[in-house]
Amino acid sequence: MIDAELIAAQNAQQQNALDSDYAALGERLARAGVDIESLTQQASQFAVALPSWGLGTGGTRFARFPGSGEPRNIFEKVDDCAVVNQLGQATPAVSLHIPWDTPSDAAELRQFAQERGLHFDAMNSNTFQDQKGQPQSYKYGSLSHSDKAVRDQAVEHNIEVIELGRKLGSNALTVWVGDGSNFPGQQNFNRTFSRYLDSTSAIYSALPDDWSMQLEHKMFEPAFYSTVIQDWGSSYLAATQIGERCKCLVDLGHHAPNVNIEMIVSRLAQFGKLGGFHFNDSKYGDDDLDSGSINPYQLFLVFNELVDIKNRQPSFAPFYMLDQSHNVTDPIESLIYSAAEVQRAFVKALLVDRKALEGFQDSNDVLMAQGTLKAAYNLDVEPILQMARLRSNGAIDPIQAYRASGYRAQCGKDRPASKNSSGSGIV
Amino acid sequence: MIDAELIAAQNAQQQNALDSDYAALGERLARAGVDIESLTQQASQFAVALPSWGLGTGGTRFARFPGSGEPRNIFEKVDDCAVVNQLGQATPAVSLHIPWDTPSDAAELRQFAQERGLHFDAMNSNTFQDQKGQPQSYKYGSLSHSDKAVRDQAVEHNIEVIELGRKLGSNALTVWVGDGSNFPGQQNFNRTFSRYLDSTSAIYSALPDDWSMQLEHKMFEPAFYSTVIQDWGSSYLAATQIGERCKCLVDLGHHAPNVNIEMIVSRLAQFGKLGGFHFNDSKYGDDDLDSGSINPYQLFLVFNELVDIKNRQPSFAPFYMLDQSHNVTDPIESLIYSAAEVQRAFVKALLVDRKALEGFQDSNDVLMAQGTLKAAYNLDVEPILQMARLRSNGAIDPIQAYRASGYRAQCGKDRPASKNSSGSGIV
Amino acid sequence: MIDAELIAAQNAQQQNALDSDYAALGERLARAGVDIESLTQQASQFAVALPSWGLGTGGTRFARFPGSGEPRNIFEKVDDCAVVNQLGQATPAVSLHIPWDTPSDAAELRQFAQERGLHFDAMNSNTFQDQKGQPQSYKYGSLSHSDKAVRDQAVEHNIEVIELGRKLGSNALTVWVGDGSNFPGQQNFNRTFSRYLDSTSAIYSALPDDWSMQLEHKMFEPAFYSTVIQDWGSSYLAATQIGERCKCLVDLGHHAPNVNIEMIVSRLAQFGKLGGFHFNDSKYGDDDLDSGSINPYQLFLVFNELVDIKNRQPSFAPFYMLDQSHNVTDPIESLIYSAAEVQRAFVKALLVDRKALEGFQDSNDVLMAQGTLKAAYNLDVEPILQMARLRSNGAIDPIQAYRASGYRAQCGKDRPASKNSSGSGIV
Amino acid sequence: MIDAELIAAQNAQQQNALDSDYAALGERLARAGVDIESLTQQASQFAVALPSWGLGTGGTRFARFPGSGEPRNIFEKVDDCAVVNQLGQATPAVSLHIPWDTPSDAAELRQFAQERGLHFDAMNSNTFQDQKGQPQSYKYGSLSHSDKAVRDQAVEHNIEVIELGRKLGSNALTVWVGDGSNFPGQQNFNRTFSRYLDSTSAIYSALPDDWSMQLEHKMFEPAFYSTVIQDWGSSYLAATQIGERCKCLVDLGHHAPNVNIEMIVSRLAQFGKLGGFHFNDSKYGDDDLDSGSINPYQLFLVFNELVDIKNRQPSFAPFYMLDQSHNVTDPIESLIYSAAEVQRAFVKALLVDRKALEGFQDSNDVLMAQGTLKAAYNLDVEPILQMARLRSNGAIDPIQAYRASGYRAQCGKDRPASKNSSGSGIV
Repeated sequence: MIDAELIAAQNAQQQNALDSDYAALGERLARAGVDIESLTQQASQFAVALPSWGLGTGGTRFARFPGSGEPRNIFEKVDDCAVVNQLGQATPAVSLHIPWDTPSDAAELRQFAQERGLHFDAMNSNTFQDQKGQPQSYKYGSLSHSDKAVRDQAVEHNIEVIELGRKLGSNALTVWVGDGSNFPGQQNFNRTFSRYLDSTSAIYSALPDDWSMQLEHKMFEPAFYSTVIQDWGSSYLAATQIGERCKCLVDLGHHAPNVNIEMIVSRLAQFGKLGGFHFNDSKYGDDDLDSGSINPYQLFLVFNELVDIKNRQPSFAPFYMLDQSHNVTDPIESLIYSAAEVQRAFVKALLVDRKALEGFQDSNDVLMAQGTLKAAYNLDVEPILQMARLRSNGAIDPIQAYRASGYRAQCGKDRPASKNSSGSGIV
Repeated sequence: MIDAELIAAQNAQQQNALDSDYAALGERLARAGVDIESLTQQASQFAVALPSWGLGTGGTRFARFPGSGEPRNIFEKVDDCAVVNQLGQATPAVSLHIPWDTPSDAAELRQFAQERGLHFDAMNSNTFQDQKGQPQSYKYGSLSHSDKAVRDQAVEHNIEVIELGRKLGSNALTVWVGDGSNFPGQQNFNRTFSRYLDSTSAIYSALPDDWSMQLEHKMFEPAFYSTVIQDWGSSYLAATQIGERCKCLVDLGHHAPNVNIEMIVSRLAQFGKLGGFHFNDSKYGDDDLDSGSINPYQLFLVFNELVDIKNRQPSFAPFYMLDQSHNVTDPIESLIYSAAEVQRAFVKALLVDRKALEGFQDSNDVLMAQGTLKAAYNLDVEPILQMARLRSNGAIDPIQAYRASGYRAQCGKDRPASKNSSGSGIV
Repeated sequence: MIDAELIAAQNAQQQNALDSDYAALGERLARAGVDIESLTQQASQFAVALPSWGLGTGGTRFARFPGSGEPRNIFEKVDDCAVVNQLGQATPAVSLHIPWDTPSDAAELRQFAQERGLHFDAMNSNTFQDQKGQPQSYKYGSLSHSDKAVRDQAVEHNIEVIELGRKLGSNALTVWVGDGSNFPGQQNFNRTFSRYLDSTSAIYSALPDDWSMQLEHKMFEPAFYSTVIQDWGSSYLAATQIGERCKCLVDLGHHAPNVNIEMIVSRLAQFGKLGGFHFNDSKYGDDDLDSGSINPYQLFLVFNELVDIKNRQPSFAPFYMLDQSHNVTDPIESLIYSAAEVQRAFVKALLVDRKALEGFQDSNDVLMAQGTLKAAYNLDVEPILQMARLRSNGAIDPIQAYRASGYRAQCGKDRPASKNSSGSGIV
Repeated sequence: MIDAELIAAQNAQQQNALDSDYAALGERLARAGVDIESLTQQASQFAVALPSWGLGTGGTRFARFPGSGEPRNIFEKVDDCAVVNQLGQATPAVSLHIPWDTPSDAAELRQFAQERGLHFDAMNSNTFQDQKGQPQSYKYGSLSHSDKAVRDQAVEHNIEVIELGRKLGSNALTVWVGDGSNFPGQQNFNRTFSRYLDSTSAIYSALPDDWSMQLEHKMFEPAFYSTVIQDWGSSYLAATQIGERCKCLVDLGHHAPNVNIEMIVSRLAQFGKLGGFHFNDSKYGDDDLDSGSINPYQLFLVFNELVDIKNRQPSFAPFYMLDQSHNVTDPIESLIYSAAEVQRAFVKALLVDRKALEGFQDSNDVLMAQGTLKAAYNLDVEPILQMARLRSNGAIDPIQAYRASGYRAQCGKDRPASKNSSGSGIV
């Protein structure tokens, strides 16, 4: 991890400016009856999980251009996660991908993470790739495969992931599959979906009582004509069939062009099936770009719903994870920056004057209703984010602190590139 | 209607060629163990309803360019529908739009239609426009409006449409609303959807026991940020909440770009909620182009599902309607031609060797599975369609017969353009 | 126009808060070496034209829900434009649509506008509708029609618009046509484009030396299979063929889904063909929503290019116009609000540290490059916009001032609804 | 290659049926004044090139599921290409990808191909991946990279590809690059494009006089925010700047959703810049699915343009290549099947009654104009394709013959899987 002295020294240089900006913003908010301290506190409590595979450089089907000092195993990934969280103070949990990150000793890994202030969030299974020595192939599907032997293998794998997760302190399983077809006619939609429901129900039966199961829908890729859970409609159908603790997970990049994602968020929550999020941004397809990098207002609108849902259902506690492919940036930097972008959207959503908004909505004062959202969005809450980090011993400017630390260069020395790196990050 | 002699004379000129083509196709099909007569019979029984508003020239928000001799009232529209059905023999029902087509005497209209071989299919209500003298405005919504008085008016209108439909012999109500928003923040998604569910439940309560209610989803337009039933997911949620005889209606043009519509068809049917179709084609948005004019293979894939569903659920009997905007063609010609295109897709779907297909699917012989669909699609079934028309006293070449009849020119004389024409066709 | 006293009184109540916010922002900017006064001055000079048709309530092909007190003629539209500009101080020009706004006396209209602080921007011709008494119909096209008589009529209309524009002090003609097709095969792309080039070249020949001609591309609507100028590629081709003063106009809503518009802006400018903009926002198609209401970051990215272009080509002076359909808001309010949103994007683009950006780009420091844009975008420049308005005798909060003035209610009395209103706003 | 006896034996079993179908179709066409023999002859002359990398199983960024007996080097790839061409008789040329397929001895490879009835089509360079030992990395671009050393390396590579191509008898270079950006701000569009133009101009200078250079545009992937040649507009601009023999290559999967590709084909041809095609099909993005598998009517519409262009410009001779990723099928089978699908679209396009079409277009008889295309498309030309193959010693049913031959099983024995297989097919 980064030397706390270095962070403190960096912060010391920036604190005067921050104090000044924070005071000015506080005064402005106070004029509107908003207490900045309450916002800063809520910002401090905000958390979004890191995906273990996100610490390696990502890639595409065309190429991957590795960066220097990539983590070579799950312990090095956890090390990197610890740095992300130390500087940014918004990412205390890690989400593992099995078998990429299977530890030989779960207890050891759990303790290793705890020592670095981290715990384990939702577990991710993988039945979209063939692993060495695996008897059955997933080339034509996994949980929905026409061959029962393949389905059984995929179910068994998921149950093993649950078992491992229990040892690591996780309490959720996220299921995303590559199942689908590339040609009209390749699969019968009805029978394929039935098989999927059978398999996921079998996994659900093995779920501990305090766990939830998260179904992740995706419109396309790696299957390019149909996918078994292609949209929120199929995800809702499946989650309803499978059981009460089966929920729908929304990945922001897994939708058809132009789709109103914030509305899907509302619908799923209204009917008790919204389970969590994979955050990223996209311009064309499932681009897995950094959260908020393309359309930050959309991210705000999603959080506008989330704050509204939370007000309605105080027990609402969705899973949040960054799911990005860092192809041209240092993954640590992108994760720090992106976590702050998500946090920024959350804080701005807190600023929405919901009482006024409801009034404008009820009276169809459209201009003022939209203006109420814009008024919150247009405010610059950077001082709140910085102050929240400062008070938690993070860095006011975490990218600058990270660069000053020389962490990546040290990794470059400590972690010579390996041909069998598990850090491919290609997801 | 068209003089039967004229049709017979036209047919006489073309029958030799048809007989030859029909025999050759019959021989080819026989080689594959398929009986052409069975197909011709099924083609003869195929029916798709005509929308009363489709007989007028359509338009866009920019302009409408009326054609000559447009129908000026519901009786003239029924006259035109009779011509479409006489020549094409695939469209024996008419779907009314209220209040555009409200008759002063329902019994009279019903008899008028019967005399022309027509009956009335699903009724369509209209709460997306303000009618003269209407107390409440739908500017900000109808069934989901924030003001109960507006919702009540919209519910009441739907109930009146049901009442009228009973008198006309219809057995279904199709509900499509323009409700939605143009700005983020304009509406609260949760509360708006709840109000929609309340209103539609009230309408459902007034539904006769042998009627169904069809909910039509639409991604956008006239609302451009959100719509209350934006996709099949919301439609399914609503239909499930409302009641067993509430179903989902799929309009081919009401989806996000790239969406796999045939898969939606399968999902809704698998869970008992597929109610019917509005057929049209589109390249960009809800273009309401003629069915099969842009992507005929997609239309075939939809019918491939429909035939599969029917095999699974013999009682499956969805509503079919052409929902097109005829901006640059003679509506009668477009409706004849389009009905035949839909029928063509149906007949080709019947040709799919489903036993072979299932085998290829189960063994993941992907190339042959897709090839099985393509083999059916590539066949030219035009002789079957022509023979089905000939045997039902329709025209082998209905467009040619229509033009030979001079029907449109006669309408141009009999129906001088009116400023208050009800035939605007702008939907 | 609005009583200046009322505006002053409103401003007086808000000035203390503004002064405080402005000082705090000024201090923050000064820390980064940026002079707030320079920004405020540039904000004051920013101008975007108002479309005369935008003052009426807009609509869709389904319905139009008129508001109260809509302008009934071009003089009342200019009155409304004067109010928009008085309060918002960012819209000193009006763009006319002919024949909707043809004045009986051009000199009178010009003086009427001048007295209200307004002048006339680019002229818009209309060959996408048939006007009463027009010999030829545009049902199947205008400038690209297969019939020379139709093309000649359309060319002649454009030349008349130029003539009128000269009298009004305009210096540009914007040409958008509805020409295109609804079916594959309806038109031959090659011959249609050739005819379009011939017609536009004929118009260009009549262009005064100090005028430019702006070609506006559009992907679809009202034609739904092809349009003659479907994208910037065809627009560039045409502008290059036609002549040096023929340029390409970019309407933000006229592109295929996901297209990178800011890149198109750059390409057209790099090759000397960027002529102007129609600002609006959209989620699905050519939704004509208020500028910045859906994706404000995209609007910022467009201005990021515009500022970059201006730095490269100091003489660069594109035409800017708001092109929105105000279906559910008071058009005056939407125009005031939208002009400020466009201005906001401009001011934020000015804040980009371009020297630092170039350095990050050259060294492929991707995270910092994107962060440099985000740093500018995240700043809240509202105090600058407010101060710019205040110093120009506009309103600090123009919507509040407008509502306080009772202007709309007065219009509701002064302008009884007319059946033949020219203010339809349906474009 | 496949035993000619086996093919002959298969054909013998099917020839009676073919003769019967061919005669019936011939009679039907004769009735319309069309000579089936002329069509069969043109079908026989149709050719589309095979991409050397298409013989290996394709994959996605998530996984690749290799098939059995994949080719391990360029000679085995050529062997597979020979089988594809032997059975399907539509693919006499191979398009190489360098450095994946660099031969140690070009003359040897050329002769090896000739002996199998094959020659070499357009050469493909690769600057979107880093090769072992390569001094400069393409992580941040190649021909448009900010660093001149990287650009020089990429230019040099292309020149080497030209040199190799000369030895192999090729006469074109296709340039597709992955250059672009993942974040707004990462690159300056203007400067990046200028660098691209400089680099490609340098390559063009090295082009032999009888060669052409083909620029391939792509909307996104591997770059997910911008690409340097994002659409046909930028491709046209570049080709125009670079030189007369620089042309634009259209890959059917590289466009924004909904875009009218056949119109782009027409525009590029009208202005002399249409160079060639990469055929494939797609539903969502650059899915690289088998040609005609998703939207066969679109493929027909593209060929409708190509036939029209050829009639206008008899010297028009574009490059055709199949560019597909065979993830779940045997690549040999997919290539045979796809080549026939492209050929099918071509033959149907030949059937369009262009004189009648022109008449309908000129008189705006829209229904008949579109019906003229549909009439050609609806015909089943399978007998023509079969007869063309039979007469060229190919197989009437090439998939069946291929399977009967046991070729793949033999490859499975002869080609044990290698870890360093060059046949990855992931493009």
